[in-house]
Amino acid sequence: MSKVEEMLRTYPGEFGFDSGELARTIDTLIECATVCTQCADACLGEDGLSPELARCIRLDLDCADVCTATARVLARQTEYVAELSRAMLEACVVACRTCAAECEGHGDHMDHCRVCAETCRRCEEACTQLLAAAR
Amino acid sequence: MSKVEEMLRTYPGEFGFDSGELARTIDTLIECATVCTQCADACLGEDGLSPELARCIRLDLDCADVCTATARVLARQTEYVAELSRAMLEACVVACRTCAAECEGHGDHMDHCRVCAETCRRCEEACTQLLAAAR
Amino acid sequence: MSKVEEMLRTYPGEFGFDSGELARTIDTLIECATVCTQCADACLGEDGLSPELARCIRLDLDCADVCTATARVLARQTEYVAELSRAMLEACVVACRTCAAECEGHGDHMDHCRVCAETCRRCEEACTQLLAAAR
Amino acid sequence: MSKVEEMLRTYPGEFGFDSGELARTIDTLIECATVCTQCADACLGEDGLSPELARCIRLDLDCADVCTATARVLARQTEYVAELSRAMLEACVVACRTCAAECEGHGDHMDHCRVCAETCRRCEEACTQLLAAAR
Repeated sequence: MSKVEEMLRTYPGEFGFDSGELARTIDTLIECATVCTQCADACLGEDGLSPELARCIRLDLDCADVCTATARVLARQTEYVAELSRAMLEACVVACRTCAAECEGHGDHMDHCRVCAETCRRCEEACTQLLAAAR
Repeated sequence: MSKVEEMLRTYPGEFGFDSGELARTIDTLIECATVCTQCADACLGEDGLSPELARCIRLDLDCADVCTATARVLARQTEYVAELSRAMLEACVVACRTCAAECEGHGDHMDHCRVCAETCRRCEEACTQLLAAAR
Repeated sequence: MSKVEEMLRTYPGEFGFDSGELARTIDTLIECATVCTQCADACLGEDGLSPELARCIRLDLDCADVCTATARVLARQTEYVAELSRAMLEACVVACRTCAAECEGHGDHMDHCRVCAETCRRCEEACTQLLAAAR
Repeated sequence: MSKVEEMLRTYPGEFGFDSGELARTIDTLIECATVCTQCADACLGEDGLSPELARCIRLDLDCADVCTATARVLARQTEYVAELSRAMLEACVVACRTCAAECEGHGDHMDHCRVCAETCRRCEEACTQLLAAAR
């Protein structure tokens, strides 16, 4: 059980999601945010840094910011606002899907892009499932 | 002219928005993020801190995070992805509208909520206008 | 092995820390940031929300922001700047120690503060150890 | 008077800084964070993106994150902790000074680096002055 899930079990109120599924999504979001930050940095560190990598770096940075904000909104369950959680999850699905698609194109020659693409796909899936449960 | 607008004029590529409107939206977003952070803190500092203020503080915190992430996504114009900008602007409209509505309910006896509500409404409007221009 | 450590192994350059220790610190930082966000929210959700909880909520929010920024700075290893990493680790030790001390005072009657205090102490320790290794 | 300063005047408690100086520093920090985000993006958009720009982009990203976190910590005045504010201001001075020095080296042929360097120097100065006042 992650610390995030342990915290959800101490929460004094109720929440609209299954707590295990919510914890798993938050854990996936903060992992994805960090992996995307690392992938942007690893791209910057490539000997072959060139305009072909600009799109990958940019999407990594966006995905990191959107995942971080989504995790924070979801981590707040007091006075939960379903409409905002859904809107952030929808934006996050777009960010993860777009970043994954770009990284998949580089994954055969850059391992950081391969790991990042896998992480973004898992995060896209977790957000999609939580969205389905939230409706 | 703000520094944000001055920076947009030095940008080496093209962008999909009118640069003045884009700069104004980014400036409004970072101002709103900070004002919401301050409103949450001022609520915490009230002698009458009680469960009635929980919703206001929570929405302030969400709005601060969503505005910050939206400003960062919009500040990146290289390899612009319209779908992600739109999704974040839509989430930001929800965050600003929800926070403004709550703060308006406290504005007559807490000045920080009055200023915060006005700032959120202006930010909601700026994001709505940029969304209309982005379609 | 966490995804963060897996990413470090794909990094094209060298870095100044032991990669296992660096990965563990980054993982601890993002976990601590999220737990602090959850603790602030759980405090807000308490029936007994009152000015006595203001200090705890405020320190949770600070600790979340400082841990998030420290994790991002450490996740970037390209063109590593030791002076900045050290300064952020030092600020993070202060944030974690201060938040832990406050939460320890509430841990006997609020479980979220107990878990948060433990998490902050572990993060304080990880940052202190990385600082020692960085000198 | 900025919205940030207007908010400080509505704050229900007292704070340890001169409110005008505090407001000016917070406004400078959020401006600097955004300008650094834009400079990283503009560097990415350069036709000549190459390993020589990696250091500039990386320092821009760090400076943006550190300035954002510092602004948030300073914006919170309830239960003010001087030691943490000082530690973050010290880290921010390092981030701004390092980023400015790098951008100054590119300012003659990239206007975004020139504007970014000026903004970072102003932010370094504002943080240094607030640090002096905080002791």
